[in-house]
Amino acid sequence: MTLLIAALLAVQNAPPIVSPEAHEDRRVTFRLRAPKAQEVKVAGPELRGPLGGPSKAMEKDEKGLWSVTVGPVEPGIYDYAFEVDGLRITDPSSPHVFGNRRGSRGFLEVPGPKGSPRHDEWRDVPHGTVTAHWYASAVAGGARRRVHVYAPPGYAKEKDRKYPVLYLLHGSGDDDSHWTLLGRAHVIADNLIADGKAAPMLIVMTDGHVSVPPKEGEEAEARRARAAGAFERDLLDHVVPLVESEYRANAARDARAIVGLSMGGGQSLGAGLRNVDRFAWVGGFSASTRGWEKGVPGMTADAAKVNADLRLLWIAIGKEDFLLEQNRTFDAWLKEAGIKHTYRETEGLHAWGVWRRYLAEFLPLLFKPKD
Amino acid sequence: MTLLIAALLAVQNAPPIVSPEAHEDRRVTFRLRAPKAQEVKVAGPELRGPLGGPSKAMEKDEKGLWSVTVGPVEPGIYDYAFEVDGLRITDPSSPHVFGNRRGSRGFLEVPGPKGSPRHDEWRDVPHGTVTAHWYASAVAGGARRRVHVYAPPGYAKEKDRKYPVLYLLHGSGDDDSHWTLLGRAHVIADNLIADGKAAPMLIVMTDGHVSVPPKEGEEAEARRARAAGAFERDLLDHVVPLVESEYRANAARDARAIVGLSMGGGQSLGAGLRNVDRFAWVGGFSASTRGWEKGVPGMTADAAKVNADLRLLWIAIGKEDFLLEQNRTFDAWLKEAGIKHTYRETEGLHAWGVWRRYLAEFLPLLFKPKD
Repeated sequence: MTLLIAALLAVQNAPPIVSPEAHEDRRVTFRLRAPKAQEVKVAGPELRGPLGGPSKAMEKDEKGLWSVTVGPVEPGIYDYAFEVDGLRITDPSSPHVFGNRRGSRGFLEVPGPKGSPRHDEWRDVPHGTVTAHWYASAVAGGARRRVHVYAPPGYAKEKDRKYPVLYLLHGSGDDDSHWTLLGRAHVIADNLIADGKAAPMLIVMTDGHVSVPPKEGEEAEARRARAAGAFERDLLDHVVPLVESEYRANAARDARAIVGLSMGGGQSLGAGLRNVDRFAWVGGFSASTRGWEKGVPGMTADAAKVNADLRLLWIAIGKEDFLLEQNRTFDAWLKEAGIKHTYRETEGLHAWGVWRRYLAEFLPLLFKPKD
Repeated sequence: MTLLIAALLAVQNAPPIVSPEAHEDRRVTFRLRAPKAQEVKVAGPELRGPLGGPSKAMEKDEKGLWSVTVGPVEPGIYDYAFEVDGLRITDPSSPHVFGNRRGSRGFLEVPGPKGSPRHDEWRDVPHGTVTAHWYASAVAGGARRRVHVYAPPGYAKEKDRKYPVLYLLHGSGDDDSHWTLLGRAHVIADNLIADGKAAPMLIVMTDGHVSVPPKEGEEAEARRARAAGAFERDLLDHVVPLVESEYRANAARDARAIVGLSMGGGQSLGAGLRNVDRFAWVGGFSASTRGWEKGVPGMTADAAKVNADLRLLWIAIGKEDFLLEQNRTFDAWLKEAGIKHTYRETEGLHAWGVWRRYLAEFLPLLFKPKD
């Protein structure tokens, strides 16, 4: 046996660490084996309640196993990291990890009480499917791009039915995979559809980062503006046609909605309000609306037309969100311009727990028949 | 501004660490900021060549940034971890991480030379789609299970065409997501189909772990046997019918293949050889064949029938694989029993680099017309 295999077997034979462990009483234990570490903490912005602050110290036993038990923790999904002598790491014992543009983290899931699952937790209802598609985007200089599409339960069977479409956009750190991985959009939709609270719909999760090759002499700000324009072109020229050719999508304006979070909220409000001839339902979750003191650049600020065309303009933001002031400013402009909309300030940070709740509020508002 | 937000901004404002960084000359730099650590190494079984062993020490600069540059590294995909004072961690700076039953790790991708992509690397060819389905399995006591299905390029357009189906199974640490995430089955298939080397086919990646609720008084060995049987029942009673009802799958025996790796190789050889009336193409990659000195339990060892029914029986194993002896034993039994098969011993460990190569060898052998 080679040394390498011996080493692998030694690792496999060490007693496995279970971390995190959600107990029946909803307390949660985090564990890390680090005999040489001096100080280990667990940290997670949405866990600050149970942690009693941004992080909580873990304690070491005589075998070098650090642990701490916190809670009870409200049923939900929480990302977290460990801090080992100041080094921020992803829990190495947990399979529940994700990567994005900011590196990697772990996430913890606390189920709802027996018989009372969370709104974003699997239930015994019919499930839709989630498909990854790849396409070459001329807008992005021919680059290969990916989009995820949720098809509701029954889609494969009801071969003559056309479905409305929600375009659902992610934030700046993420990509098109995170609205299912962390956002549980497919689970939330399954549950609402099963309860008759939302219309069966396609949900298209597209990648909000479009690379545009640099131009010589172009300033950073100009390139950013070009990239922002490229997102909207990629959406309208590639993603919408892909969805409407590969799926039985209802291509009517009244059957098209767009919403996103953070950066994606700026993109959805921008693309929606600039294209009211294409999207009748528009929203922004904790949206980035920086610089919109005079409205969305490039939109037709004809309130009568916008009000006639839009079936919904829905904006929500957490009271502890660092984008709160931007949203207040944009809300004030919409009011001044006479554009009908819903503006809500809720509890919460700039975080996934808030966005999952917003999605569950938003889906039931969509695709209602006209009065 | 709350303390929490200040802390978040401080993290965001720290210069980002790029790790791993694959240079144009195919050398690779790993980096980790850990000012208080005494010893940091990078480790990865398939990187032992460039690392000069199972791991390689990294060096600390005056700012506490550890790094090491290795290589050139052969174009490929490699998993790796850092060891910080004996603590094995996932690279926190990289978005390219995955979790499985053994915890989490990072992975590094080294592209092929310009204009000469790897066989398992994206090329500018038509791409298929990958869909996640969820289903309730009566075999698993009603549990929700997931399966991933690759549909080849053109599937959505060629509405009258039926496709052959490969069932592709993962190893014991993984689940139904890893054959795409790490195995790149969809990319390998896209490339071979584009080159006319493999038939357009559906590839069904099912979850090999079926939970069976414990029975009182049952011994561990008996429960394992029941779980193994449950996998085959779940496959035949739930997965195959799901695929054949939701897809335009050719349900002929000659259009059904099954192969898997490690645990999944034992499952594919077992399910295949016990069900030659259902699968005409059967394989095992680095398969777990423990205890098969007298063949696959439950199979009809009628060589004439098996040879008449099977179009392919293909077994391959790396010479450094810890399952080598098991495979030699099973090969010897097949020879003795007079069952036609291909048996190959190749370079390599029990690792994904080997399985991606095997898949690329296996797909072109499938679904050939009879001479």
